[in-house]
Amino acid sequence: MSLLLASAFLYLSNMKIIIINGPNLNLLGKREIDIYGNQEFTAYFAELQQQFPQFELEYFQSNGEGQIIDKLHEIGFSYDGIVLNGGAYTHTSIAIADALAAITTPAIEVHISNVHAREAYRHHSYFTAHCQGFISGMGLLGYALALQYFAAQK
Amino acid sequence: MSLLLASAFLYLSNMKIIIINGPNLNLLGKREIDIYGNQEFTAYFAELQQQFPQFELEYFQSNGEGQIIDKLHEIGFSYDGIVLNGGAYTHTSIAIADALAAITTPAIEVHISNVHAREAYRHHSYFTAHCQGFISGMGLLGYALALQYFAAQK
Amino acid sequence: MSLLLASAFLYLSNMKIIIINGPNLNLLGKREIDIYGNQEFTAYFAELQQQFPQFELEYFQSNGEGQIIDKLHEIGFSYDGIVLNGGAYTHTSIAIADALAAITTPAIEVHISNVHAREAYRHHSYFTAHCQGFISGMGLLGYALALQYFAAQK
Amino acid sequence: MSLLLASAFLYLSNMKIIIINGPNLNLLGKREIDIYGNQEFTAYFAELQQQFPQFELEYFQSNGEGQIIDKLHEIGFSYDGIVLNGGAYTHTSIAIADALAAITTPAIEVHISNVHAREAYRHHSYFTAHCQGFISGMGLLGYALALQYFAAQK
Amino acid sequence: MSLLLASAFLYLSNMKIIIINGPNLNLLGKREIDIYGNQEFTAYFAELQQQFPQFELEYFQSNGEGQIIDKLHEIGFSYDGIVLNGGAYTHTSIAIADALAAITTPAIEVHISNVHAREAYRHHSYFTAHCQGFISGMGLLGYALALQYFAAQK
Amino acid sequence: MSLLLASAFLYLSNMKIIIINGPNLNLLGKREIDIYGNQEFTAYFAELQQQFPQFELEYFQSNGEGQIIDKLHEIGFSYDGIVLNGGAYTHTSIAIADALAAITTPAIEVHISNVHAREAYRHHSYFTAHCQGFISGMGLLGYALALQYFAAQK
Amino acid sequence: MSLLLASAFLYLSNMKIIIINGPNLNLLGKREIDIYGNQEFTAYFAELQQQFPQFELEYFQSNGEGQIIDKLHEIGFSYDGIVLNGGAYTHTSIAIADALAAITTPAIEVHISNVHAREAYRHHSYFTAHCQGFISGMGLLGYALALQYFAAQK
Amino acid sequence: MSLLLASAFLYLSNMKIIIINGPNLNLLGKREIDIYGNQEFTAYFAELQQQFPQFELEYFQSNGEGQIIDKLHEIGFSYDGIVLNGGAYTHTSIAIADALAAITTPAIEVHISNVHAREAYRHHSYFTAHCQGFISGMGLLGYALALQYFAAQK
Amino acid sequence: MSLLLASAFLYLSNMKIIIINGPNLNLLGKREIDIYGNQEFTAYFAELQQQFPQFELEYFQSNGEGQIIDKLHEIGFSYDGIVLNGGAYTHTSIAIADALAAITTPAIEVHISNVHAREAYRHHSYFTAHCQGFISGMGLLGYALALQYFAAQK
Amino acid sequence: MSLLLASAFLYLSNMKIIIINGPNLNLLGKREIDIYGNQEFTAYFAELQQQFPQFELEYFQSNGEGQIIDKLHEIGFSYDGIVLNGGAYTHTSIAIADALAAITTPAIEVHISNVHAREAYRHHSYFTAHCQGFISGMGLLGYALALQYFAAQK
Amino acid sequence: MSLLLASAFLYLSNMKIIIINGPNLNLLGKREIDIYGNQEFTAYFAELQQQFPQFELEYFQSNGEGQIIDKLHEIGFSYDGIVLNGGAYTHTSIAIADALAAITTPAIEVHISNVHAREAYRHHSYFTAHCQGFISGMGLLGYALALQYFAAQK
Amino acid sequence: MSLLLASAFLYLSNMKIIIINGPNLNLLGKREIDIYGNQEFTAYFAELQQQFPQFELEYFQSNGEGQIIDKLHEIGFSYDGIVLNGGAYTHTSIAIADALAAITTPAIEVHISNVHAREAYRHHSYFTAHCQGFISGMGLLGYALALQYFAAQK
Repeated sequence: MSLLLASAFLYLSNMKIIIINGPNLNLLGKREIDIYGNQEFTAYFAELQQQFPQFELEYFQSNGEGQIIDKLHEIGFSYDGIVLNGGAYTHTSIAIADALAAITTPAIEVHISNVHAREAYRHHSYFTAHCQGFISGMGLLGYALALQYFAAQK
Repeated sequence: MSLLLASAFLYLSNMKIIIINGPNLNLLGKREIDIYGNQEFTAYFAELQQQFPQFELEYFQSNGEGQIIDKLHEIGFSYDGIVLNGGAYTHTSIAIADALAAITTPAIEVHISNVHAREAYRHHSYFTAHCQGFISGMGLLGYALALQYFAAQK
Repeated sequence: MSLLLASAFLYLSNMKIIIINGPNLNLLGKREIDIYGNQEFTAYFAELQQQFPQFELEYFQSNGEGQIIDKLHEIGFSYDGIVLNGGAYTHTSIAIADALAAITTPAIEVHISNVHAREAYRHHSYFTAHCQGFISGMGLLGYALALQYFAAQK
Repeated sequence: MSLLLASAFLYLSNMKIIIINGPNLNLLGKREIDIYGNQEFTAYFAELQQQFPQFELEYFQSNGEGQIIDKLHEIGFSYDGIVLNGGAYTHTSIAIADALAAITTPAIEVHISNVHAREAYRHHSYFTAHCQGFISGMGLLGYALALQYFAAQK
Repeated sequence: MSLLLASAFLYLSNMKIIIINGPNLNLLGKREIDIYGNQEFTAYFAELQQQFPQFELEYFQSNGEGQIIDKLHEIGFSYDGIVLNGGAYTHTSIAIADALAAITTPAIEVHISNVHAREAYRHHSYFTAHCQGFISGMGLLGYALALQYFAAQK
Repeated sequence: MSLLLASAFLYLSNMKIIIINGPNLNLLGKREIDIYGNQEFTAYFAELQQQFPQFELEYFQSNGEGQIIDKLHEIGFSYDGIVLNGGAYTHTSIAIADALAAITTPAIEVHISNVHAREAYRHHSYFTAHCQGFISGMGLLGYALALQYFAAQK
Repeated sequence: MSLLLASAFLYLSNMKIIIINGPNLNLLGKREIDIYGNQEFTAYFAELQQQFPQFELEYFQSNGEGQIIDKLHEIGFSYDGIVLNGGAYTHTSIAIADALAAITTPAIEVHISNVHAREAYRHHSYFTAHCQGFISGMGLLGYALALQYFAAQK
Repeated sequence: MSLLLASAFLYLSNMKIIIINGPNLNLLGKREIDIYGNQEFTAYFAELQQQFPQFELEYFQSNGEGQIIDKLHEIGFSYDGIVLNGGAYTHTSIAIADALAAITTPAIEVHISNVHAREAYRHHSYFTAHCQGFISGMGLLGYALALQYFAAQK
Repeated sequence: MSLLLASAFLYLSNMKIIIINGPNLNLLGKREIDIYGNQEFTAYFAELQQQFPQFELEYFQSNGEGQIIDKLHEIGFSYDGIVLNGGAYTHTSIAIADALAAITTPAIEVHISNVHAREAYRHHSYFTAHCQGFISGMGLLGYALALQYFAAQK
Repeated sequence: MSLLLASAFLYLSNMKIIIINGPNLNLLGKREIDIYGNQEFTAYFAELQQQFPQFELEYFQSNGEGQIIDKLHEIGFSYDGIVLNGGAYTHTSIAIADALAAITTPAIEVHISNVHAREAYRHHSYFTAHCQGFISGMGLLGYALALQYFAAQK
Repeated sequence: MSLLLASAFLYLSNMKIIIINGPNLNLLGKREIDIYGNQEFTAYFAELQQQFPQFELEYFQSNGEGQIIDKLHEIGFSYDGIVLNGGAYTHTSIAIADALAAITTPAIEVHISNVHAREAYRHHSYFTAHCQGFISGMGLLGYALALQYFAAQK
Repeated sequence: MSLLLASAFLYLSNMKIIIINGPNLNLLGKREIDIYGNQEFTAYFAELQQQFPQFELEYFQSNGEGQIIDKLHEIGFSYDGIVLNGGAYTHTSIAIADALAAITTPAIEVHISNVHAREAYRHHSYFTAHCQGFISGMGLLGYALALQYFAAQK
């Protein structure tokens, strides 16, 4: 797949994009492999950096709702894009949704699994109204597609 | 954007992929331009054919629920992928959902606008449970990203 | 009644108005006479043509959701008014509602019976938000009153 | 418009019809002009008297639920028709609905705005089950159309 | 208590009891005779005065929510009992319920018809929580039974 | 009817009336005295027999849903009246409600406490639709009032 | 099984019965064999013709809601019976339900699988109120049992 | 009808099938004849025994939930089939549903009337998930059709 | 407390502010003292007049919904502020809410008790959407704080 | 309490504790072994008697709601503790809940499986409000733990 | 405004009051200025300190639910008052509500915007039941009014 | 198992069990003593260590959702058991529930009070589906019983 997306991107660019992963996504590759796949996110992040050399890519993960809000405040007025997989906070955190509404950096919401085909309590996202787009069920590829979106915005 | 996705895809491939658009999407580019953009889909389809030369791409649009089911039956046991924007039938048609469940070709669900941020009756999709992935809010780019998904499956 | 509404309308006008009847309304005058009356719609349509000589009146009926959408697309950017009795699709078709939202010709929603006094599932109309007005419970007279509305718009 | 509906009505008739307006409709023409238009109802009522010379038209407005019930009792066994715009009581007053059920004069329910396209709490009417017909979204013209209904009943 | 119900009622008593009827109950005996019977309430009230000579019986009817509240305030700290048929306000008036909660005279709630077997919106009473008892479906006899209750309290 | 409630009850009558008490009512006078009072029902029943000499009164109590149905079948085509306090089965037993619908003896529903002012799950009664009347919150007096109803029916 | 039901039916009869199958039932025997079995419906239909020689049996299948309504209108005033498996339209089509209500030919509703034991959205049928009976969960045998019903009506 | 189903069934068989009827079905033929018909079940049972000589048919009826559970335990590991009309317990008894889940004998659920077209509280069956099939609205014939199902299983 | 708020307000001002109290608030100080305190509102109003000498303060109380609407119409286009405690009408009166929407004088909603911590039916206010602010649970002090709001607007 | 759980239990005690099992629990060890385990309850009961020599342990099982109520009445004023596994009646029987409220013996609610992780209709227990504690999902061990609770109460 | 509230407060007091702001309120004055105004809270806090010299005022803000709980524990048994704007946690945090219930310092709930007039999910507050009062929609002034409340409590 | 619970626990064991207490449980023994008792958890923990010498017992408490998730990740792949009292997060935290699903150490859910008999919002636990068992209403003893469960698993 790396070939597929890697192409020739030689643009002189300094777009700063952050990938923010919410609770339990630090276990990726270690738990529930049938649902989430067996690749750790940090390894995948290295692949993404190669595929998208035109971006300054940053990665942040936290299990704490407050920390995610703190991070959004910190980067949300200066970065060029956010790829946000809020994990379970997607469905419960109005506070993070309010942070997304308050900041000016655009965000794409990503879910590894097909959340709308799982438990009913995973069908609603407080974040959607404050994000530009939504990708789910594509596995880790969803992160790459979200980055494509930012690449296409120029 | 065409450059971005076009790359060098020289694979010898004859994957057959169909894009199916549901009701009112024939008006794309003509109506509600603030929501759906001002490009007609047929023009965009030509771009996609250029960007994905490794696919045999086909396009089908109908305003009729029955015709979409007929088409799914026709291609659903032999094609390699479906990119489906069911329009309003997404939210009302169990019959199309049953067709998706019955066929064997995998499908990606695409919505041009961010359906989960619109009226409540657009928040539920009968199709999701029978699709591999879900992309919304990305504009026409969503179709290209869905094709990327199929490209990445090989 | 024909006298009542016929009056002297001698306006030079070429307003094009279409009456669109949805599913089962082709049975009017033949079925459930206690609810819908015993006059066939085509006979009534001839009366309307006499009463409203200032309009080019057209009549379309279909039992198919897709065909109604096709017709709305066909006339919805050039005609001057739509009198729409969507029958049961009123309560189930987001697709027709989307078509009404997409076109530019104004529409009046008409129901022969008093739909809000019948089964609960007939109380909600997806069309109302995209129509100028709503008339129900007036029998066939409702169509004439809707035409009065268009006559009064000049 | 007065010409449109005025015609030749020379019938010898003494049908007594009352128009009853509920709470806040005394402000018509003074408040929320974008929703309700800028014509005071009393001025419009004079137009209606001219358009429908065959009726003894009467007008009653009250902001009090009890007074509307009192009026319905008073006229509801002898008048020939009621045009009722119950305003907000439409959605909350079972007591007025019971009065409509108890009296014998037929009523047509009129709303100036398209109530089913506004707040959810305006979608239900306690009155509908006890009225012959329902007109909404037509502006003041709705009253004239309701009177047409009574004219057509003879 | 066996004595209680027996004949002669020779108690020296000056218990003051008021019967309060809400909206539309002034039409009793005139409307919907199949549901409510054909006896006017005032005639029945005379019978009750004869049957319960030990009470100073008073009768009040109003179609106005505010007037019923005014009356409850007026008698609610000095009378010995209230027989209340609130009519439709039973189901909609928190204000009357608050008045019942505020006063100290005990009340019995009476309904002529079997309200819990009618429309769903008649199944809930705001008054019940502030009344000693509830009688429905017994026709006019319900008022007499409610008075029996007060007779039995001494 | 004024005579109806007066003393001597000299009617030659052999009306057969049964009082049926449902689950836990055998504990009356022994449990939850603040809610249900401290009198055992059998003692109260003796009082009722004295008060209503014109009736052949019978008493039946069971904690079993099936037994109550059996009893209703047994007496429900020949007795003249049923006073039914179904206890908790009031709220859960469609089967007893069906039995009430199937038999021809009329029934009055009695509850000692004010059930509509207690837990929400006590607000609905499956029996009401099949009973002539409903009395609650009157304590044991409710049984006597229900018998008054039958006395008044002749 | 053919022996079981075939028996001796030598009645001189010309009852015309139509079996109408809704969306996706043309895939029977080809898809989801664990749920629907592996026999194509046309083969089964031939068996039914043998088993019920006393009927003129006809078979119609369509994936289009409108076409099914058209067919019901066409046969619904002259045929003697309808065996209807509406597929997914069972749960969404008020329009077909209205057609069933409008026609005079009696219908039996059949479902191959036990629909009430599947997804919640398959638990409600708009058709049931307008059909004589309902059979589900019996596999293809359900069609034969429905025909037995018509055979037993003579 | 007896001829219709009786045929030649000469199979040497000792399949043991029980018909279990729940509450109030002992009144069949005696009550609500317009809904349930005027034939007592025991008479009909004799007909069934003639029609299905290949079965050892047994009949059990009880108004008691517990007794029905006891009977299911008793026969549910050795009999070959159950035809169960649970009456009102269908809608309220999780306990009987649990018994059906626990036993190994297959069951068919039968309802004489079209339960899904009656009161809303009759639309849900706790039993369906644990039964092979469901027949309703066919009158007593439903029992025969259920037996056909077992006959066809061999 | 009077000292606290009284201060030196020497502004030359003629702002006209009205305090409107809804149903049952005339009983303040007389009823349910544990909830509402033991001070009559008229006495408290005199205190407020002293504390806010810069305002022309007016007081209006009514138990009638219609009268409150009348009063809002009367003052709602000329006064500078409304302090509104709608009592129970807060939760039921769309008509008063419509009046608030129609007038131009700004309003502050006040509740003596903490309405959101009481019965569920007191949690929703139809007025809130048309008021500038909301104060509850502060006892009579809430009125003074609302006046502070108007004082701070200059 | 550390002593509490330790070995020798030499207390002179005659605490009487009853274990009551509801419907279908007589099949324990025979049915659905994957959910409920393969040990019959009577065998397990013998183990419990050995483990808790300080108690007079009694065991009662019934499939009948009425019988369980009868038993609760019988022992509920003299025994020292109840371990109650109400089976399916847990979710449907207000009558048993009322019995628990009426008696004075404390009860612990036990479920073998993790009821809150099963079907939604098993998530609510009418009994909980009248029990001291709740144990589920522990298999048969739950009964022993409930007995520990009573042992710890002294 | 500072003059208005500042007055002469010369009380010798050492009441300790804390203002606690929840998530995103650190962005005040920087984001969504049309909703929340353009003043940073720290600047406003300095004003409050001047206006209320009789208080030892403290300010705490955190985006973390746990930190707010920690703070409430820390001050909740010794301080004299809390002014709490919980931001989005108001609607989701039972844990903070439990902390408010556990501590003994009284709290006033403040919201800058009119939360009950915004999204439905902002209408419910878990905190209200554990607070003395509620102020919303008053902008930053709400904090001052809440402090007035504490000032008035002495 | 009888041996299992008996005294001496001489097993050579090094099972590592952690007790995790969620928000506000650090106040145990200090707040709301009528609900939670007056013993601080740390004191009780010491007792537990004595009672269960065969376990390496660890105690963790946090008011932060993220910290609890961090702890679960840290111990959830190596410890032998978790006794989890999630406090209010039980009802709101899908994130902690996901952590429980992701780890491999089994957990028992404990609540000191009888949560299902308290506010409705405490009736649902997101954790239950991922825990082995559930104990509530037993006070601190619940922790000991949960440890018994782990002791019994060997």
